[in-house]
Amino acid sequence: MNDETTTPVAVIGLGLMGQALAGALLEAGHPTTVWNRTATKADQLVAAGARLAPTVGDALQAASLTIICVTDYQAVHELFDASDVKPAGTTLVNLTSGDSAQARAAAQWAEQRGARYLDGAIMAIPSAIGTAEAVILHSGPQSDFEAHKSTLDALGTVTYLGADHGLASLYDVAGLAMMWSVLNGWLQGTALLRTAGVDAATYTPFARQIAAVVTEWLPGYAEQIDSGSFPAEVSALETDVRAMAHLIEESEAVGVNADLPKLIKAMADRAIAAGHGAEQYPVLIEEFGTPRDD
Amino acid sequence: MNDETTTPVAVIGLGLMGQALAGALLEAGHPTTVWNRTATKADQLVAAGARLAPTVGDALQAASLTIICVTDYQAVHELFDASDVKPAGTTLVNLTSGDSAQARAAAQWAEQRGARYLDGAIMAIPSAIGTAEAVILHSGPQSDFEAHKSTLDALGTVTYLGADHGLASLYDVAGLAMMWSVLNGWLQGTALLRTAGVDAATYTPFARQIAAVVTEWLPGYAEQIDSGSFPAEVSALETDVRAMAHLIEESEAVGVNADLPKLIKAMADRAIAAGHGAEQYPVLIEEFGTPRDD
Ligand SMILES: NC(=O)c1ccc[n+]([C@@H]2O[C@H](COP(=O)([O-])OP(=O)(O)OC[C@H]3O[C@@H](n4cnc5c(N)ncnc54)[C@H](OP(=O)(O)O)[C@@H]3O)[C@@H](O)[C@H]2O)c1
Ligand SMILES: NC(=O)c1ccc[n+]([C@@H]2O[C@H](COP(=O)([O-])OP(=O)(O)OC[C@H]3O[C@@H](n4cnc5c(N)ncnc54)[C@H](OP(=O)(O)O)[C@@H]3O)[C@@H](O)[C@H]2O)c1
Repeated sequence: MNDETTTPVAVIGLGLMGQALAGALLEAGHPTTVWNRTATKADQLVAAGARLAPTVGDALQAASLTIICVTDYQAVHELFDASDVKPAGTTLVNLTSGDSAQARAAAQWAEQRGARYLDGAIMAIPSAIGTAEAVILHSGPQSDFEAHKSTLDALGTVTYLGADHGLASLYDVAGLAMMWSVLNGWLQGTALLRTAGVDAATYTPFARQIAAVVTEWLPGYAEQIDSGSFPAEVSALETDVRAMAHLIEESEAVGVNADLPKLIKAMADRAIAAGHGAEQYPVLIEEFGTPRDD
Repeated sequence: MNDETTTPVAVIGLGLMGQALAGALLEAGHPTTVWNRTATKADQLVAAGARLAPTVGDALQAASLTIICVTDYQAVHELFDASDVKPAGTTLVNLTSGDSAQARAAAQWAEQRGARYLDGAIMAIPSAIGTAEAVILHSGPQSDFEAHKSTLDALGTVTYLGADHGLASLYDVAGLAMMWSVLNGWLQGTALLRTAGVDAATYTPFARQIAAVVTEWLPGYAEQIDSGSFPAEVSALETDVRAMAHLIEESEAVGVNADLPKLIKAMADRAIAAGHGAEQYPVLIEEFGTPRDD
């Protein structure tokens, strides 16, 4: 049993995000040590009760949980390669943005130094930190996550994804892909409807309804992908591409951008060229899963 | 007052979709006249109580509401240009797929012949017709829609969009753009996660959650579009593009297709080049609303 409000924590990196993270931990009552390359960025936090450590190594000594949030992994390595840094006594939670390979390499680096290491990704802006809206993804050894979950909970909605340290950053970019896809699908439709004088507010409830219906299909489509079998229960790809051509034609006819419609059709065309015309849409996972050399 | 189960109706075109439409109207109790170029496709419907008309003109005489569902608008015009066709006594509801310009031209054609005309688009497969799942969009004079809504209700979830006859087909393609965008965003993420051995069923609930959160932003983003003002309340485009670059890099690093990530960034890059880097994502409506010449 661990009284979560007395876990001593450290926060390394006090940019916009690091300050928000340290602030939320202080607010939750944790003894909080902070460090930043530019020390003045700690002033407000110190006024609120944080202790400013003179070095990164010193900050780590004080903490059973150390959160790192700097610009990128290069900055992480520069910081931690300093001679006084002995991470073995703390659990590092690296919330710096990076890719899955960088996360796995950092985990290896930490392991070699006997440190416990979790990688994380913050799907939120600084002002949301400390609220349920701030989704923070973690990956690495589950026991290390469980040991500190009650402390991490102060930061937002904290999620554990699995032992592979690369997962947090993969889920992060996957989520971004979904986010921009939904926004772009909506923008394409909004642009089409504006040509007929329909404003965005009028069109939007329709777009939301479509998105809601389509997301309900995803579990069934996921089953097709996981089983590698794509029977055309609802519609075959070669029927879909006719409607895709129609979307391109309508976009061009009314004078809106047709790049997104063309990409949609190009992906399906390649799947059909690969012999999947009689199968169902999720068979496109093969195209999405394969880099295109050109 | 109109007893909706005794409205005489006609269905022109008995392909897969036309047969489903006529079947649903018959089931609802309407005296139903049918016509198809290949008469044998009426056999089942006749057995179920439909009357087979010898000509299109004859079918229209019998009906106060006539549904048309053939391959395309060219087929519609071939059919209706026959000398015996006098559409003035019926309300035509054309559910044939086409674009907004074709719908507006057909409305003009009908108007010149003194006929009432609604254009429509079916967002469903034939087996869904007659259930709430089948969304059918209509546009044209509201009074004509209201006069026949109770009859049309037999076909599915029937929606009225506005007086402009082009709206049904514009909403239809806009909905398709949203549908494929959601599916592709999900496929991109699924492909990324599969490189780490995460199966689609495991990833999918996360994708659905992201989509649900993002669709909640749309009404606020729609307000930005309708007011033409895009303050960066949450994030500026020039911050977003760094994450877009990261999505491309991660996709390439793990060996999945990066075409969709590249399109996402290309659209944002163009908006930044046009001077919108400090504004918020919905400012991309200007890019989506403008054809690109190259
Ligand atoms: N802000 C957001 O909305 C947001 C959202 C999600 C994720 N993130 C991620 O969170 C991380 C931090 O973002 P931020 O918004 O806090 O950025 P920021 O305001 O630019 O702060 C960057 C931080 O990194 C430090 N730093 C950079 N290079 C360093 C080096 N070589 N040695 C030591 N310290 C170094 C900076 O120290 P100095 O103060 O001395 O310059 C500063 O503390 C990034 O990976 C970002 O992608 C941010
Ligand atoms: N099936 C779907 O899932 C679906 C979904 C949404 C919308 N739609 C739309 O519904 C419409 C009909 O689709 P469907 O699936 O029923 O197609 P279908 O099974 O191929 O049937 C086509 C129909 O059009 C008739 N036709 C074609 N050219 C003609 C001409 N020149 N003169 C007279 N009749 C002609 C055919 O008559 P014959 O029998 O004599 O060939 C047949 O009745 C299309 O616009 C389609 O895009 C279909």
